[in-house]
Amino acid sequence: MENTHRHSLECLFHPDSVALVGITTANPWHWTRTFLDSLIEFEFDRPLYLVNPKGGEIKGHKVYTSLKDIPGSIDHVIGLVNAQIAAGLVEECAEKEVRAIHFCTAGFSETGDPKRIKLESELVEAGRRTGIRIIGPNCMGIYCPQSRLSFSPAFPRESGPVGFISQSGGNSIYLVRQAALRGVRFSKVISYGNACDIDENDLLEYLAADPDTKIICLYIEGIKDGRRFRRALEEATKTKTVVLLKGGTTEGGTRAVAGHTAALAGSRSTWEALCKQLGIISVRSLDEMIDVLVTLLFLPLPAGRNAVLFGAGGGASVLIADEFESRGLRVPALPQELVARMQEFTPAAGNILRNPVDYSQNLMDAEGTRKAFDMVSEWEGTDFVVTFVRTGQFVLPWLSGSRINMLLGRFWADRDELPKPVAMVLEPSILPQEAEAILTAINECVSSGLPVYYSFGAAANAINLVLNHAEHLSKTA
Amino acid sequence: MENTHRHSLECLFHPDSVALVGITTANPWHWTRTFLDSLIEFEFDRPLYLVNPKGGEIKGHKVYTSLKDIPGSIDHVIGLVNAQIAAGLVEECAEKEVRAIHFCTAGFSETGDPKRIKLESELVEAGRRTGIRIIGPNCMGIYCPQSRLSFSPAFPRESGPVGFISQSGGNSIYLVRQAALRGVRFSKVISYGNACDIDENDLLEYLAADPDTKIICLYIEGIKDGRRFRRALEEATKTKTVVLLKGGTTEGGTRAVAGHTAALAGSRSTWEALCKQLGIISVRSLDEMIDVLVTLLFLPLPAGRNAVLFGAGGGASVLIADEFESRGLRVPALPQELVARMQEFTPAAGNILRNPVDYSQNLMDAEGTRKAFDMVSEWEGTDFVVTFVRTGQFVLPWLSGSRINMLLGRFWADRDELPKPVAMVLEPSILPQEAEAILTAINECVSSGLPVYYSFGAAANAINLVLNHAEHLSKTA
Repeated sequence: MENTHRHSLECLFHPDSVALVGITTANPWHWTRTFLDSLIEFEFDRPLYLVNPKGGEIKGHKVYTSLKDIPGSIDHVIGLVNAQIAAGLVEECAEKEVRAIHFCTAGFSETGDPKRIKLESELVEAGRRTGIRIIGPNCMGIYCPQSRLSFSPAFPRESGPVGFISQSGGNSIYLVRQAALRGVRFSKVISYGNACDIDENDLLEYLAADPDTKIICLYIEGIKDGRRFRRALEEATKTKTVVLLKGGTTEGGTRAVAGHTAALAGSRSTWEALCKQLGIISVRSLDEMIDVLVTLLFLPLPAGRNAVLFGAGGGASVLIADEFESRGLRVPALPQELVARMQEFTPAAGNILRNPVDYSQNLMDAEGTRKAFDMVSEWEGTDFVVTFVRTGQFVLPWLSGSRINMLLGRFWADRDELPKPVAMVLEPSILPQEAEAILTAINECVSSGLPVYYSFGAAANAINLVLNHAEHLSKTA
Repeated sequence: MENTHRHSLECLFHPDSVALVGITTANPWHWTRTFLDSLIEFEFDRPLYLVNPKGGEIKGHKVYTSLKDIPGSIDHVIGLVNAQIAAGLVEECAEKEVRAIHFCTAGFSETGDPKRIKLESELVEAGRRTGIRIIGPNCMGIYCPQSRLSFSPAFPRESGPVGFISQSGGNSIYLVRQAALRGVRFSKVISYGNACDIDENDLLEYLAADPDTKIICLYIEGIKDGRRFRRALEEATKTKTVVLLKGGTTEGGTRAVAGHTAALAGSRSTWEALCKQLGIISVRSLDEMIDVLVTLLFLPLPAGRNAVLFGAGGGASVLIADEFESRGLRVPALPQELVARMQEFTPAAGNILRNPVDYSQNLMDAEGTRKAFDMVSEWEGTDFVVTFVRTGQFVLPWLSGSRINMLLGRFWADRDELPKPVAMVLEPSILPQEAEAILTAINECVSSGLPVYYSFGAAANAINLVLNHAEHLSKTA
């Protein structure tokens, strides 16, 4: 039975053909158009059919008036029809030997309305009767760049090692887009909504066995079979790193879960205990999940918790030392001998040769900066280095992308190997001109394979979580 | 003596003339130029003199080769000379009857070098001998828009009710610039560095008595006279709201303080206890300080802790409910009767009529959105409303400034009075095009006098701190 499951999920990720049923012909900004826009953007290269009773044409694609008029076979249907006729669509799909349907359609059990809860039961019943697997309803479905499937035209075309199972469509869009800016790429992302048939267990079991997925992220609002979920998590952690965000851990959040995907939430402490026991990295927000991914993927695992913070800004240096030490990392004093060697070529005024190293007044001296950076990196007391350039305290026109890059380049450019893991903190700005300068710098770092964080607190927090996880692994190994 | 102090500080903020001594003539990007650029940008309208032994001209201003060549009297000197000749400059200033000097110059006690510690002692000695008050060394000095004094050309020209005493120059620049984007304006900002003469106590006593200052923010690395500081704080809290950020609350942070301004740090718990006792709002970062300022200035004090969260995004709604409830606020269930009234004009599919209210699929219906927003605002169970539009999950070209404004405008535009306090959460993006769209929306909200936050966590945290403070006041009243 499990094998059949896995098999039937396989067709979700690698369909031979796709039909969008219920796409709107009139309004090009209608939500149902997102799926067509995404498949066009991703150059979907197998048969693609559109269906709407009104017929016509959209962007050069013929619109069939009904599913049965389509000449070829159909593997996978994306259902965009309204809730009332969803079960009927399942029956029609059976006639065309469709293997799986993703229902984006909302307006089922999540409304709490008995009539609409019944519509969902009918959908489940139709799926069971016909043997067609259903994903959703009330979700965005599947992003699998390898097979050119996507629910957003803005997602990256390249694949990567991260799988994401997300009960929420919006949260999955947020995570993929924001993580992509930091260099993270995905194997498979699944927004599965109300989970009327395919649920977190099916998907977790699938990704645990998926050779393209190295890290599994989960955004879970509630689970339907706790024992199976626990087993699946246990199995997954044997070969993958698992990162979990539980939505609905307060009274208000739990009520929101009920309205969103009609799931049962469970208390925060239960989930924390489970994560601790199984060696799962538990995060409290999507941004924290992204920071952890960046750390896992791009920061070589530091040998310990001793950070040297190197950059510009005296006041900043005090606050970031506090940020790091209050989050379980250490900012050790540099030995006097090392400071003395740095003093030989560093002006005393305006630079602070401690840890953090505030090199404010000497950053324009490329050779000196690099020499000082190398000295602190090579010191045996250093496990990793975090660079800081508090862009928000500089003013235009001083600040430009090339200027920031020039500074940052002194830390890492043109080197095959850095003596210790290096993390970059680049604080974004909301001013468009500054935003552009900082984005240029971020892109440069990201394309060089460096981990970029938007704040010191975020960097310290994520590095601490990943070190905790590594310690858990070494204890249980 | 105290009166003399106050008097001598007055001339710091309202000098009749200013001389920049030690400004570089050669390099227009040199740090010493910042002060001239700032005074020009602020259209400083009293005599302004430049001094450098090389003479010449900068931007149409004659450069005097020495202080004594200046024909007129000089009230205030900004000292940019190097540390070795700083004490000598004090003696020269005495001959010109200068009343106060701000030394930007670094390279004194903060280096830990005995020779440089001695230079600072000599500076103190010269100040005492001549009666000239000194601010610094190793700091940015004074920003007082009312008298057209500034140490950054990028600061706002308008005055406001916030005074900021900051041991760090970089932190004061960061705070003023970032807070300005959110509508916060300042009466006086003082970066006072090593505090060799004028210290946190002088400045706090001055701002406590300053009629233009309603809120006093402090960034303190260490204090030199604990008893006087406590008395000054006690006095200040009688008439002003005080917000404090203590830098150096961990071992690493404390070491950084020593290197930065050579002050003594003190433990975190001591400071927390002091703040609690005196009713001071204690914050842990500059961003948190800004969020608190925005709340104090722009969110009318809510009558209680019950928030209705209204906006778009199902997954987001679950997480933000958690963010609010885990930070001491409440997200109460809407009564069935209210939900029933909203259901009359709101489609069931894709909208969640609970709290948070996810109005995703109906935001294009201006009238409906406004009606629903008013209904939840007017409900007696609502103390304040927080709006959310998770821009990061939308894609361009959907997202534009005018589009966001159109949505947001439904909540607050063209109204003289909102039934309940309203807070806006607008998450910035690092993508330039999106950054611009969001900035347009932020500016619109800010110029309408609304409190804008960059995340739900930040909003919840700041509102909680301000409510705690109000509760403290009502208990001690």
